[in-house]
Amino acid sequence: MKQWTVTSPGMRNLMLTTAPIPAPGEHEVLVRVEAVSLNFRDIGVIEGEEGAAMPFPLTPGSDLAGRVVATGSRVTRFQKSDVVLGTFWAGWLDGDWPAEARVLGGSLPGVLAQYVVLHEDWLVHAPRTLDAVRASTLPCAGLTAWFALIEKGGLRAGQTVLVQGTGGVALFGLQLARAHGAQVIVTTGSDEKRRRALALGASCAIDRTAHPRWDIPAREYTGARGVDHILELAGGDNLGRSLAALRQGGRISLIGVLGEYAMTFPSVPSFLTRPVIQGVGVGHRRALEELVRAVDSIELEPVVDECYGFDRLPEALAHLKRGAFGKIVVKVS
Amino acid sequence: MKQWTVTSPGMRNLMLTTAPIPAPGEHEVLVRVEAVSLNFRDIGVIEGEEGAAMPFPLTPGSDLAGRVVATGSRVTRFQKSDVVLGTFWAGWLDGDWPAEARVLGGSLPGVLAQYVVLHEDWLVHAPRTLDAVRASTLPCAGLTAWFALIEKGGLRAGQTVLVQGTGGVALFGLQLARAHGAQVIVTTGSDEKRRRALALGASCAIDRTAHPRWDIPAREYTGARGVDHILELAGGDNLGRSLAALRQGGRISLIGVLGEYAMTFPSVPSFLTRPVIQGVGVGHRRALEELVRAVDSIELEPVVDECYGFDRLPEALAHLKRGAFGKIVVKVS
Amino acid sequence: MKQWTVTSPGMRNLMLTTAPIPAPGEHEVLVRVEAVSLNFRDIGVIEGEEGAAMPFPLTPGSDLAGRVVATGSRVTRFQKSDVVLGTFWAGWLDGDWPAEARVLGGSLPGVLAQYVVLHEDWLVHAPRTLDAVRASTLPCAGLTAWFALIEKGGLRAGQTVLVQGTGGVALFGLQLARAHGAQVIVTTGSDEKRRRALALGASCAIDRTAHPRWDIPAREYTGARGVDHILELAGGDNLGRSLAALRQGGRISLIGVLGEYAMTFPSVPSFLTRPVIQGVGVGHRRALEELVRAVDSIELEPVVDECYGFDRLPEALAHLKRGAFGKIVVKVS
Amino acid sequence: MKQWTVTSPGMRNLMLTTAPIPAPGEHEVLVRVEAVSLNFRDIGVIEGEEGAAMPFPLTPGSDLAGRVVATGSRVTRFQKSDVVLGTFWAGWLDGDWPAEARVLGGSLPGVLAQYVVLHEDWLVHAPRTLDAVRASTLPCAGLTAWFALIEKGGLRAGQTVLVQGTGGVALFGLQLARAHGAQVIVTTGSDEKRRRALALGASCAIDRTAHPRWDIPAREYTGARGVDHILELAGGDNLGRSLAALRQGGRISLIGVLGEYAMTFPSVPSFLTRPVIQGVGVGHRRALEELVRAVDSIELEPVVDECYGFDRLPEALAHLKRGAFGKIVVKVS
Repeated sequence: MKQWTVTSPGMRNLMLTTAPIPAPGEHEVLVRVEAVSLNFRDIGVIEGEEGAAMPFPLTPGSDLAGRVVATGSRVTRFQKSDVVLGTFWAGWLDGDWPAEARVLGGSLPGVLAQYVVLHEDWLVHAPRTLDAVRASTLPCAGLTAWFALIEKGGLRAGQTVLVQGTGGVALFGLQLARAHGAQVIVTTGSDEKRRRALALGASCAIDRTAHPRWDIPAREYTGARGVDHILELAGGDNLGRSLAALRQGGRISLIGVLGEYAMTFPSVPSFLTRPVIQGVGVGHRRALEELVRAVDSIELEPVVDECYGFDRLPEALAHLKRGAFGKIVVKVS
Repeated sequence: MKQWTVTSPGMRNLMLTTAPIPAPGEHEVLVRVEAVSLNFRDIGVIEGEEGAAMPFPLTPGSDLAGRVVATGSRVTRFQKSDVVLGTFWAGWLDGDWPAEARVLGGSLPGVLAQYVVLHEDWLVHAPRTLDAVRASTLPCAGLTAWFALIEKGGLRAGQTVLVQGTGGVALFGLQLARAHGAQVIVTTGSDEKRRRALALGASCAIDRTAHPRWDIPAREYTGARGVDHILELAGGDNLGRSLAALRQGGRISLIGVLGEYAMTFPSVPSFLTRPVIQGVGVGHRRALEELVRAVDSIELEPVVDECYGFDRLPEALAHLKRGAFGKIVVKVS
Repeated sequence: MKQWTVTSPGMRNLMLTTAPIPAPGEHEVLVRVEAVSLNFRDIGVIEGEEGAAMPFPLTPGSDLAGRVVATGSRVTRFQKSDVVLGTFWAGWLDGDWPAEARVLGGSLPGVLAQYVVLHEDWLVHAPRTLDAVRASTLPCAGLTAWFALIEKGGLRAGQTVLVQGTGGVALFGLQLARAHGAQVIVTTGSDEKRRRALALGASCAIDRTAHPRWDIPAREYTGARGVDHILELAGGDNLGRSLAALRQGGRISLIGVLGEYAMTFPSVPSFLTRPVIQGVGVGHRRALEELVRAVDSIELEPVVDECYGFDRLPEALAHLKRGAFGKIVVKVS
Repeated sequence: MKQWTVTSPGMRNLMLTTAPIPAPGEHEVLVRVEAVSLNFRDIGVIEGEEGAAMPFPLTPGSDLAGRVVATGSRVTRFQKSDVVLGTFWAGWLDGDWPAEARVLGGSLPGVLAQYVVLHEDWLVHAPRTLDAVRASTLPCAGLTAWFALIEKGGLRAGQTVLVQGTGGVALFGLQLARAHGAQVIVTTGSDEKRRRALALGASCAIDRTAHPRWDIPAREYTGARGVDHILELAGGDNLGRSLAALRQGGRISLIGVLGEYAMTFPSVPSFLTRPVIQGVGVGHRRALEELVRAVDSIELEPVVDECYGFDRLPEALAHLKRGAFGKIVVKVS
């Protein structure tokens, strides 16, 4: 089989290699990978910047959709031919994050390969209503938005959600909020993306270049009441803007902001507004199973900006780095 | 002005009388009543069967939509011409139910009158998107369903809700669940009501005459997983059926069941299923304000089976007693 | 090694047998059992009355304290010599109860043996401050009380808890409630047990033979406010008494009531009181780890009514059947 | 009667004046003030630095214990001779903070007077077990610690709480945590205060002058697991230290930090640790009533550093400004 391997840190050391198809152990499942969606952290792993990554050479990639082709002797959760998704966190099943949980394509081998062997606990059944390309976007970006807004946030109809930008997590946030009867404000940097966000159901899209104090029109949109939930995807002193846009007792989810910069916000509003600021790092398997049921129930269609062939991974990563509207996916087979 | 008065217990002692238009005190508001929706408890109050009712003669009715025509000198929440709804519980603003809370048309005078004076704390702004007739259904039936499923139940897309029958609370349950991306099962006794429930968005409607063990098809509908939330509106040993239909860790809301009969259920499933069985008695003002925002956001249109003129109250109550599909409303002005 | 075996249903078929010491698999741990505490369900398993039990012959017992004597090659959670407790539910780690969870001494082999092999996921570190006999009471009775009052109940200082009887769960409820600053009411059938409950810290002990309507003095004790949490351990129409003793919005935990009888309660208070009635079936591993930390922090000393030698299991079970004050434990080694 | 009045902004304009004893309106209560505890914000109000304060001249002070001497005609919650506490927030009864809530000695007249008239909704019954001087410390400092740790934090036995400094909120945090079976770490700047904190029950007291990276010994104390709850009372980049000391999924309460400086923390741990950072601004009346019950149940004795006579208010404020161990109280009558 073919798989992508990074021999030593650096994008130029990423190459398509061949390897034997692995065999599943007792509790393991052999999956034929059909699609892998990409995340910013894949770039960090390839460039050797993610702390807990595997030793090189390594295979990157964490989000797969595929089909079970063989099962170990003691596997009970899956059968041959089942269509499955991987869980981003291997070993976080429910409740609190456990110290032993690890990440596929991080401290565990990745999934940018034609076949992978995974413990049966690290897989869930895929939604009935999505093809593999779209389904592969759920394990990280989809689950992050679901975990922030639904599992932790208890979102309800009539609330207002604000998402920053139009990347994968932001657009899932938009779609999930709409499906729960909420209004959605998007901040974005381009007119084209503004139009596409409105077409996806955003009630309001603010150009953050024209409005560096985007919190002011956001607050106005809510009739001065303030936004109920904010997906904070920019970090730095943008967090101060988010606090200014928030309603009394509202919630800000801090999500996977890259870079070293400090989060910063003025102290007084931090207790006058009584916000809940919640760090979110993807989520657990039970929530992914609920997201899958929700996707089938509401017929949510994830936004894939572009889908690349397996051998075009470097181009796909370059597209992601430039900025995508929604997700970038690699079709494996 | 005209108002309905019950001189002594009994439906035959309900009569249209005249009275002076009352004047608001410092913190009070004078409201011109436009519509009043009816509840089963109104019949109990008129017949003298509700424990905590006012001494006779009394004016019944608890759920009003109307317009502010005058305000007391210290009123800050409302202005003349505001369109308002009453809160079923006078004095339950948020959080836990306080012992001092009382009910309009119960231990406090009712609203089946052309004008009423109410404390400003007992009113909320009406939704922009509904006329008075439809809006008057929110304070009791709408809020009960919202409080059970959303405020207490944390309903999310992909879950399954089961509602019993097609009365006011059940249909609000159906509509609110659909607006949050959930599937809905309705149990009903007539073919006509089955068809109407499906037309409203129910995914599955079970004839409980044909299926006294309605829990079996309900469970099947969920692929054996069990129902997430049940609005228990029948009581008695039906509660045992509800437990049998429920998923592990699911939630049953016990709602305003009339009559003396005992609730009863087998003990073993009660801990094997780890259910949460939650008594619900309408809800607080903050939740009603959230419901109003939700109604405007999702453009929910409450189901009014029939609307009667103010002088036809006895016919309206008779219709309610026979059984209605959704709500019965009296148009006052 | 020696182990207890039931060859076919019935207490008379319980016998001490010999077997080879088992060897741990990759993810498994070999534990030398030091103490096993007994539960009513052990009697049901031996008598063939528990639905999901293993086929006979079987070894009963679910609650062990012991010491790790060997570990499989891929075990990471434990080392040789660690002192450990089993988890009652094998495979319920955190969050919602998963369908694949099974019970030691139920659908899995039991622990009334000198050595057992268990998956490393089914063990936690024992508290530093307890010997094996006392520590063995935590996995089922201790965790049940903790899960009901603390994990699900959010107990806080100043609240009032009522426990029914003086069995293992009830006395853990008493001790844990006291350690969180709550007042405790105990209902009991004997004067001797009343005295012992008061000596353990109960603020009020009601003789339920003298007071079949024990809810009346219980409510009086709270100054008419009502009890905050009730551990319902009797079932049947006693549940109606519990509802009558409860405060507005209070919580009743339904716990492992044996027998076929129906739970029954009058319908009206069930929504007027807005109770939360919650089925509890022991709890998950994360909560057991928290209980262990709490036991060390507050130096809780579980109440062991009597401790029997390994070969005296039948006498220990007979004692349990007669009724114990707290727990009955079998010392294995 | 005598009362303290600030004629215009500035401590030097604070003077003892005379005024007629006010008369209660319909829903109001006349209270003879017995003790008032002081808060940092009183200094801000006197110096004209609190945004929403009353126009000058004004009477400062928000936390009173006293006795009802007369009641308005429609008062139902209190009778003459009842011993009462004020609520810091006038009009926040339960649930979410409402926009109409105001602060005594802020946007409403203060309580540093021999008699005050207050709406009956703004009072609760005082604990049975405390004198007025100690009881007066509950409405702001006591409730803030309770709200952060218990109402929002769900503190339980076995957890570890860290409080910063030894002011009023910190010491209530220490005592309430101990009363729920938790361990407590205190950071402090003086050896004398370290000793006193340990004597009050702290398990560990860290000198933050000797250990600017106090998070390192704090984390060590927990066996590397991290602290469960932190009361963040310092602000600025200290918040980064708090994040470093926190366990996975732990909670930081941001409490009333004065000054303009920015809160700041590195972005990466903010989502890797999945913290909940929660702004706390005192709390609601229902929680104060629960705190009062808890104080009586656990016989908590608030720490009063020094109690001053009514005419020595300026000295009391100067002591507060210098820094106190616990609370400073003014005895009024």
